[in-house]
Amino acid sequence: MRISELSVATGVPVATIKFYLREKVLTEGRRASATQAEYDDHHVARLGVIRALVDAGVGIAGVRRMVAVLDDPPATPYELLGAANAAVTPSVDVALDLAPAHELIARMGADASECYPEQVAAVAAALATLDRAGFTVPAPVLTAYLEGLQTMAEAELSATPTDSADAAVRYVVLGTVLVEPLLLALRRVAEQAAAARRFPAA
Amino acid sequence: MRISELSVATGVPVATIKFYLREKVLTEGRRASATQAEYDDHHVARLGVIRALVDAGVGIAGVRRMVAVLDDPPATPYELLGAANAAVTPSVDVALDLAPAHELIARMGADASECYPEQVAAVAAALATLDRAGFTVPAPVLTAYLEGLQTMAEAELSATPTDSADAAVRYVVLGTVLVEPLLLALRRVAEQAAAARRFPAA
Repeated sequence: MRISELSVATGVPVATIKFYLREKVLTEGRRASATQAEYDDHHVARLGVIRALVDAGVGIAGVRRMVAVLDDPPATPYELLGAANAAVTPSVDVALDLAPAHELIARMGADASECYPEQVAAVAAALATLDRAGFTVPAPVLTAYLEGLQTMAEAELSATPTDSADAAVRYVVLGTVLVEPLLLALRRVAEQAAAARRFPAA
Repeated sequence: MRISELSVATGVPVATIKFYLREKVLTEGRRASATQAEYDDHHVARLGVIRALVDAGVGIAGVRRMVAVLDDPPATPYELLGAANAAVTPSVDVALDLAPAHELIARMGADASECYPEQVAAVAAALATLDRAGFTVPAPVLTAYLEGLQTMAEAELSATPTDSADAAVRYVVLGTVLVEPLLLALRRVAEQAAAARRFPAA
């Protein structure tokens, strides 16, 4: 199909498709003539992924890194998960005290050395932000977070498709980032529901 | 203290403080002369909150709504939570199918009518994004999310300070938004740790 047809098929404006081509997050179509290229289902699928990442708040640099992971997946699911996470975790450039992050990670039965540096730095940065705001997460709440997230992560890993590497890559890369808005939205609903139970309206 | 001293005390540049004053998220200091204003601990604390919200990715409009909630808290914790959530939940302006969101909310033992429209719309928007990307959250994973988030929300609500309305407001408003980056960062660590257990490095 032509670029105009690709636009109709995906709902992505032609100018935006051209931007993705220039940014190399979408591969060029097959040259049909000097001025025309042919696009196929691969482009439709890839545009769906790109739009989803953009909708989820991933910047163009993060999209480029995610697409690179999709195109050239690491050999093991362990490396795949790390690469996908690192691709969408902004690098933190300030000098951070990593000790509180290491402590939390240890409480999840993990070792910070098993994690990618970006992941540890993201925890440290989040803790520093809370600290700067003078906000302390109460101990039982923190425990509930650590336990809940571990249970969720185990469920996520258990459901990793094993039938094809492609399916596993897609699941890990998209599941990591696309599910975040859903989790945050559901958290607010859960809080509101818990508040309704605890503080019934008069 | 003068604005220059407020800048030193908080690490926020004078130009940025002036921006917050113009945007009315920071109240004016007490006029000491035609050209000088005096700032106090209230301004230091408020700047800490503003910076934390900005660090957490809240835009200036969201900061303004949050500050309004802090300055004029609703009468009940239930309304407070809703107002805080709504302040930092971007309004969704596309026509969304709310039925899948209602269904998920019901699975958390809640009723969508108990929730603020922004909260329900955020769930619907997150589901629509996943749908557009062709990504389905496996059923057991979704169940783990719903159960985990409910447990976390109960813990959060149980820890709401009851000694003063101010403390409760601060806890709810900041806890809602500031904890999000921590949860997302810890989720990635939990996933990495679960992957390490499931797929040990060769």
